[in-house]
Amino acid sequence: MNQAVILAGGQGKRMHAEIPKPMFRVLGEPMLEWVLGACENAGLSRICVVTGYESEQICAYLGDRCETAFQAERKGTGHAVMQTIPFLNADTDGNTLVLCGDAPFIDADTIRKSMEQHIAEGNSVTVITACVKDPTGYGRILRTESGIAGIVEQKDADDEQLKITEINSGCYWFRTPDLIGLLGKITNKNKQNEYYLTDTISIALADGLRAGAFCSENPDVVLGANDRKGLLALNTVARERVLNTHMDNGVSFVCTDGIIIERAVKIGKGTEILPGTILRGKTVIGENCVIGPNCVIENTVIGDQVVLNTVQAYDSQIDSGVRIGPYVHIRPDSHICKDVKIGDFVEIKNSEIGEGTMIAHLAYLGDSDIGKYVNIGCGTVTVNFDGLKKSRCEIGDHAFIGCNNNLIAPVVLGKDCYTAAGATITTDVPDYALAIDRGTLHIKEGYTLRKFAKRKDESK
Amino acid sequence: MNQAVILAGGQGKRMHAEIPKPMFRVLGEPMLEWVLGACENAGLSRICVVTGYESEQICAYLGDRCETAFQAERKGTGHAVMQTIPFLNADTDGNTLVLCGDAPFIDADTIRKSMEQHIAEGNSVTVITACVKDPTGYGRILRTESGIAGIVEQKDADDEQLKITEINSGCYWFRTPDLIGLLGKITNKNKQNEYYLTDTISIALADGLRAGAFCSENPDVVLGANDRKGLLALNTVARERVLNTHMDNGVSFVCTDGIIIERAVKIGKGTEILPGTILRGKTVIGENCVIGPNCVIENTVIGDQVVLNTVQAYDSQIDSGVRIGPYVHIRPDSHICKDVKIGDFVEIKNSEIGEGTMIAHLAYLGDSDIGKYVNIGCGTVTVNFDGLKKSRCEIGDHAFIGCNNNLIAPVVLGKDCYTAAGATITTDVPDYALAIDRGTLHIKEGYTLRKFAKRKDESK
Amino acid sequence: MNQAVILAGGQGKRMHAEIPKPMFRVLGEPMLEWVLGACENAGLSRICVVTGYESEQICAYLGDRCETAFQAERKGTGHAVMQTIPFLNADTDGNTLVLCGDAPFIDADTIRKSMEQHIAEGNSVTVITACVKDPTGYGRILRTESGIAGIVEQKDADDEQLKITEINSGCYWFRTPDLIGLLGKITNKNKQNEYYLTDTISIALADGLRAGAFCSENPDVVLGANDRKGLLALNTVARERVLNTHMDNGVSFVCTDGIIIERAVKIGKGTEILPGTILRGKTVIGENCVIGPNCVIENTVIGDQVVLNTVQAYDSQIDSGVRIGPYVHIRPDSHICKDVKIGDFVEIKNSEIGEGTMIAHLAYLGDSDIGKYVNIGCGTVTVNFDGLKKSRCEIGDHAFIGCNNNLIAPVVLGKDCYTAAGATITTDVPDYALAIDRGTLHIKEGYTLRKFAKRKDESK
Repeated sequence: MNQAVILAGGQGKRMHAEIPKPMFRVLGEPMLEWVLGACENAGLSRICVVTGYESEQICAYLGDRCETAFQAERKGTGHAVMQTIPFLNADTDGNTLVLCGDAPFIDADTIRKSMEQHIAEGNSVTVITACVKDPTGYGRILRTESGIAGIVEQKDADDEQLKITEINSGCYWFRTPDLIGLLGKITNKNKQNEYYLTDTISIALADGLRAGAFCSENPDVVLGANDRKGLLALNTVARERVLNTHMDNGVSFVCTDGIIIERAVKIGKGTEILPGTILRGKTVIGENCVIGPNCVIENTVIGDQVVLNTVQAYDSQIDSGVRIGPYVHIRPDSHICKDVKIGDFVEIKNSEIGEGTMIAHLAYLGDSDIGKYVNIGCGTVTVNFDGLKKSRCEIGDHAFIGCNNNLIAPVVLGKDCYTAAGATITTDVPDYALAIDRGTLHIKEGYTLRKFAKRKDESK
Repeated sequence: MNQAVILAGGQGKRMHAEIPKPMFRVLGEPMLEWVLGACENAGLSRICVVTGYESEQICAYLGDRCETAFQAERKGTGHAVMQTIPFLNADTDGNTLVLCGDAPFIDADTIRKSMEQHIAEGNSVTVITACVKDPTGYGRILRTESGIAGIVEQKDADDEQLKITEINSGCYWFRTPDLIGLLGKITNKNKQNEYYLTDTISIALADGLRAGAFCSENPDVVLGANDRKGLLALNTVARERVLNTHMDNGVSFVCTDGIIIERAVKIGKGTEILPGTILRGKTVIGENCVIGPNCVIENTVIGDQVVLNTVQAYDSQIDSGVRIGPYVHIRPDSHICKDVKIGDFVEIKNSEIGEGTMIAHLAYLGDSDIGKYVNIGCGTVTVNFDGLKKSRCEIGDHAFIGCNNNLIAPVVLGKDCYTAAGATITTDVPDYALAIDRGTLHIKEGYTLRKFAKRKDESK
Repeated sequence: MNQAVILAGGQGKRMHAEIPKPMFRVLGEPMLEWVLGACENAGLSRICVVTGYESEQICAYLGDRCETAFQAERKGTGHAVMQTIPFLNADTDGNTLVLCGDAPFIDADTIRKSMEQHIAEGNSVTVITACVKDPTGYGRILRTESGIAGIVEQKDADDEQLKITEINSGCYWFRTPDLIGLLGKITNKNKQNEYYLTDTISIALADGLRAGAFCSENPDVVLGANDRKGLLALNTVARERVLNTHMDNGVSFVCTDGIIIERAVKIGKGTEILPGTILRGKTVIGENCVIGPNCVIENTVIGDQVVLNTVQAYDSQIDSGVRIGPYVHIRPDSHICKDVKIGDFVEIKNSEIGEGTMIAHLAYLGDSDIGKYVNIGCGTVTVNFDGLKKSRCEIGDHAFIGCNNNLIAPVVLGKDCYTAAGATITTDVPDYALAIDRGTLHIKEGYTLRKFAKRKDESK
């Protein structure tokens, strides 16, 4: 079958971090994930990742997702592919795509179309290329009428060759048995004493095998990063691409500054995203919402007509018609039902908030099940932790919970119940009941005349 | 009299929203508003807006502000103007400006000067034009010594004509009776079977009427948007223009990222706006303030030397010398008097906060009248809603309100009064009095040795 | 000895502020500070700043840091340097660098290297120059084989001279005695009746003295600002330069929008800074932290692996492994020890928070000493101010402080103590003890059936 080898052994010294280069992130995902995803989307299910520097980080990330091969010494791209010979020998029927794990913008379309051409032309090897404005530094593709005559590196190119704008992406399709054969023929007789995969092209041509080139419509396939500036540049390309896709779908932006939207996020038409908003993971946003400014939303499913103004929400569900903010924190496993209104300085954690409930200000609801059309007073908190264990609060529909209440969990407050301001609720409250624990208010006349006597004298 | 017809019947399919194109917003205002405002600022008071797609949205927005005409079928710009014939017939004395409702950057100066030229030259029709760097796609203006010879569309232009950079903005002045006459002569004999207003030029010239062109100094008069990317581009042009005007007036920016300032906002010299700040509506900011980062200020009047650090304020007044933030929410109908200091996690709503009062942290004051030099303790809330009605709190000058208080409205706390931490104030407190409702603190020795005995064993 | 004269008398009218131009800030520091710092870094310790417009602002800023001379009338750059003749006469042994106080990007390297060349060539005067893409408006350098033949101003230059891209930065090295002599020879016989320092070059050459030019590798040495747009442009240059330096050091940015990092800030490798983050003053951040989005950090020392999500911190210390946010305010003189976790809507002020302590939500700790592994309940506040004086709270290791507590300072809560939700702690609590002041909870059945009877009827 057709299969892929992804080279992921590089270090990225100029990144100044003990992370293999393919594990650096673009829009929140490792570059290796971008490459793997493109392979999977193109229908390649048999994949081997070649690790090297800090290989255990890559293996931990991949788990059982695909095979890996370990390159103990770093002796060039050809040497890296040699480590996959057991993988290649296990299925020599089809073709093998070799990709760079740190060039994230290879796409499924390029993989599919280049494979089709590779097969249709009966090539032993097909280089994936791109035409770019500034080819400086890249290997140039020397085309012939029926294929290619080779790849010439920048340093070896003559003046005419330097003008060529079609360049080598570093990705190649090989007939699998030909790849195995060619790997046996490349040598390390060069200045760096490394085995270069590129050498397979000239060897193939010398052996009378067919070599072709597929020029991708996506010039970004060649982009990689050697340092943090390059990584920022990759992120910028990816950010703009995602933003453009959402605009094509009818999402609105007045100004895109500080907006970072990861690839998997879905947004409905008519929704407006305001500056400084970060949307991560599997977040899904409905239609005609206003999200931002300065929201952080992660793995959260949001309905239609939702307004989130300066809200952070994680791993939760927010239903249609909800209005939240500013300055609200929705922690994981919360479900905010239809038409709920949450004001400022509120935290919700692991709770269900029923339809139409209002939580206007300065409250914490954790591990709670709140009914419909409840009113939660300002300063009220669920006391869900006693130092030993967490317990739940339950509040019935239409309850009116007073200000600065402590609801000592586990506790059940019935429907339509009412609690007085300042109450600490230590027992269940029946439906329709009032709960109050108020002391006696004492008034001591003339108190500040005495207390502040000295201060007032001083200020004269 | 001189009058205007604004074409606002278009749909904007690629916006993916059921909104007429002129109702899409640039810096918070519908594009139609920009065009209407330019007409009004140029002294045109008699205006007819031609609606079509989702016409009721435009009619609802306009109210009684001007006349409207409805174009039931979309048969071209000429057909749209035909719908205004009753409007035109009602006053045929002067001239009529025809404008596009979705080209927001037409300006009063261009309207006035083009009208003057139109009248001075005795033209039947005067095209408003602009000279642009890239005229691709626009109709080119064919000048003669004494006026124009016509407008040639991109597709019909020869190589020489394609080099012309003076283009048709789609806005025209007509002598009103000539417009009525010309409308009667245009036909829909073209591929699209539409009536084009542009055809009036060639008909006028053929009839021996004078046609001229007025070249606007503002090349942005031609800009419009067909999709969300185009709308973002219009917003970007408008944003930068507003920012530049404020900089010319002495407003300071270290970095303009994420700053969105709507057109009507006024800012005094020496004020600094920090990134991520959104200023909307009729906001007025005084001199030498620091606003931002990440403020949202809407319809709020702010004095001099005010510092707002990460504050949202709506429909309120904030006097000179006030310092607020970070993380504060000022809701509508609040008046924050001179030299007030508000710290973090505070909400003010529909309240007067007297001069020099301090509200340092975690408080909610709603429906309240707070005197001068009051100190509001941390965690204190006005209990302004009992489930049935909202009531007011009143606090006298120099009062000292303790922490975590509940002030049960309606209630009056006298001047120089003092409330103990944790108090729930249910009755009025006289001037100079102390109010306290504290219970007895019980100490139970050795409690956690028993309570956490099991946990401590486990952790060994 | 070698010394420097900095010209800082200019006004900057188009800035619209009563601030001398060199006092306008670039990345938080006056431009004069940038110039002074470059001199000091280049080893020049004897410096005289010439003031003029609003001179007292500059004198107040400088204090005793260097000498100043006052130019009472503004009669040109030559006249400004004449005011320093007493300063120059006091040490005529070496060379004097004359610099513009409003061109912030002069650097120590340029100063050192130009001085070396000035001395090596035995010049009387050496102009510091730069080669720029667009020299329009600047004085052009006329080179000879052995030095320079003069500087020709834009308005006096012929076509060939206008093509010269090497321009005058306005900074010059002089042999000190030659400077004194040349100052005596310049006149104000020109249109503006001003004394120009540039004239010293032609006078020197006419007198047979050697004049040279040193071309800086840093073309930004010529940059200055005449208005707020220009000041924004200087800030943009400085911002990008600082960001690039951090990226070279291994700091990570997904998107730099709204990020402002002042020059003195230090950041360890592997740390990621998210959009909207402002880092000021002497802030130091360790390795592998995540800072942002929307943090404001000022003069704060932060360890490794710290996560700050939407936090403002001032003049504090935050140790390794701490996680804070979102929406937290750390006020001056706080020390957050190792592995502390602070959640949302928390203010810390002038407090020590011991290792591993948790403050999850809605709390204020001021003037407090909190032990290790303490748990602070939601809504709990330290009542550190009684209207007269501030006092401290002390909490022992492993204490469990309940929700909505008031800790009335001065007070000591012992280690492993436990306080009940809603408690107001007025006396010290022994180790292991429980403190509780709870009243009796009264339940009144059927309360809302009566209270809301009318409302419910109405809603039918």
